[in-house]
Amino acid sequence: MLPDLIDLNTLRSALADSATADATATQAAQARNGQLTKPPGALGRLEDLAIWYAGWRGDEKPRIAKPQVIVFAGNHGVTDQGVSAFPPEVTVQMVANFQHGGAAINQLAAEAGARMDVHALELDRPTADFTRAPAMSDAELLSALRIGWNAVDPEADLLVVGEMGIGNTTSAAAICHALFGGAAADWTGRGTGVDDAGLHLKTRVVADGVARHGGQTDDGLRVLAHLGGREIAAMAGAMAAARVLGIPVILDGFICCAAAACLQAIAPTALDHAIAGHQSAESGHAELLARLGKQPLLALNLRLGEGSGAALAISILKGAVACHSGMATFAEAGVAGAD
Amino acid sequence: MLPDLIDLNTLRSALADSATADATATQAAQARNGQLTKPPGALGRLEDLAIWYAGWRGDEKPRIAKPQVIVFAGNHGVTDQGVSAFPPEVTVQMVANFQHGGAAINQLAAEAGARMDVHALELDRPTADFTRAPAMSDAELLSALRIGWNAVDPEADLLVVGEMGIGNTTSAAAICHALFGGAAADWTGRGTGVDDAGLHLKTRVVADGVARHGGQTDDGLRVLAHLGGREIAAMAGAMAAARVLGIPVILDGFICCAAAACLQAIAPTALDHAIAGHQSAESGHAELLARLGKQPLLALNLRLGEGSGAALAISILKGAVACHSGMATFAEAGVAGAD
Repeated sequence: MLPDLIDLNTLRSALADSATADATATQAAQARNGQLTKPPGALGRLEDLAIWYAGWRGDEKPRIAKPQVIVFAGNHGVTDQGVSAFPPEVTVQMVANFQHGGAAINQLAAEAGARMDVHALELDRPTADFTRAPAMSDAELLSALRIGWNAVDPEADLLVVGEMGIGNTTSAAAICHALFGGAAADWTGRGTGVDDAGLHLKTRVVADGVARHGGQTDDGLRVLAHLGGREIAAMAGAMAAARVLGIPVILDGFICCAAAACLQAIAPTALDHAIAGHQSAESGHAELLARLGKQPLLALNLRLGEGSGAALAISILKGAVACHSGMATFAEAGVAGAD
Repeated sequence: MLPDLIDLNTLRSALADSATADATATQAAQARNGQLTKPPGALGRLEDLAIWYAGWRGDEKPRIAKPQVIVFAGNHGVTDQGVSAFPPEVTVQMVANFQHGGAAINQLAAEAGARMDVHALELDRPTADFTRAPAMSDAELLSALRIGWNAVDPEADLLVVGEMGIGNTTSAAAICHALFGGAAADWTGRGTGVDDAGLHLKTRVVADGVARHGGQTDDGLRVLAHLGGREIAAMAGAMAAARVLGIPVILDGFICCAAAACLQAIAPTALDHAIAGHQSAESGHAELLARLGKQPLLALNLRLGEGSGAALAISILKGAVACHSGMATFAEAGVAGAD
């Protein structure tokens, strides 16, 4: 099912050629939705979610039984510029915390009944400082994409990808600035909590990095290599594999969506299997969601990353699918319809 | 713990005299929140939710293990005025659907790991048409309040109350119009889906009913008796019992919040143990939430009732509490803090 990711062209063609949602299952799910014991439309967005999910699973009455959460971690040379409130050692410390079950995403994945995997990507070898050189070579990009590509369980029926990487809101802001233009300040936020002076510095670093690599472009893979990070590329690889495998994805916050934006630049339908789990408090995320054409399910002022907002949204999608597949029809329940 | 609800004054004094959240547990939870392995504030509203819940449970590290969902059903004489798109027979049919596990709330309660109880209140004896007489006598009101009061499991650690009752958005709109004033149209919505002519008629019925019973008033129990319904009174009784028992409540949609508003009119602190689960698509709900001073967790365009939106929000609160109580501290995990 999933081809070996032998080169970057394999990713491009896989995204361009992947099948879309199953029209027959979508139509059958729409018909079923109209027969369930509720007034038409009374479950609001839950109805749309369930029909969308049914289409992607090719199943009129699907269940969500095997969600997978994957957290990727990477280190960023751009931290040399002083863009984060936390020291880069925190990345490796937090990976240990994920492995021992102590982080927020561990609790949220468990609540959602999801399997959780952690992939630390060469933490002792940060990407290059993108204000001085491309963050990654093409070979390094491919290696990181492959880790994500191969991390997806083909038996999973829902995917969330999260991240940890001190400095990675700077990288994500640079990706957005390169793909969508505007001003660097439009995409640069406080991340884990830099102060005003830190935000000013970070904005300049984003502007310098994007200018150095040639300004605005629609080449998603070049942007990922020059301005991204290993964990961001791995997230993109995992979401691309899920697209090929027909596994629906719930997008997390700013960094996850920056990775997703690179895929959308490669193929406009690359994110049709994805919904937005939440709107983060990171300042550029609302605009980034708008550029992706996604409406978030939650807006609870989270700005943690790790996949936390998307993992929280798993329960919403599960509720939607449970209603769709578990409710009785008017005929089954002997309930009268509207006048 | 819970006094016998022998008369309406018992309810008034129980609401006025009940203890508030535990300040010691609240402070301990705040301190713990500051030590967890995340940047300060990065879990946004989840942090506030967990601290609030810890205070009400008197436990610095609480768990949510026994949520209870109770659905109350009642019939409304005001349906004689043609205010609903569905015939009143649907109430008893939907109660059977709840009992057989076929409704939306059955699926959502199961997803949330909640016990679900159903109480049908004299469905063969609708309340009086409130455009002609008080909906209920004081004795009938007390009887309905008692059913809700006694339906709460004292061992529950979270409560959601939902409802089913053809005609009950008309009753809820009248309650809001009587308690908060404004125009009848401000509070009257399409319910299960009346057309423009139906909405016009329904608005006139709400205005007539409130005018007949004396216009705006802050007497919550009189409003509940004259304009409410048995299931609405039972919801109020259950939420009041939860207040006395220190069981946190997640409010559902327009009808649940109208019941809650009657309690708030009786005692301003009556809803301190309650949060808003969602904002419904029913047109008056946003304003009603504002009057209650509650910010909804979800806004997914639901307008079903049954407790569905609140049941969906159980997972959000569970996620918040799981993070709070399950995460490692910086010291436990050996993670460095901010610079």
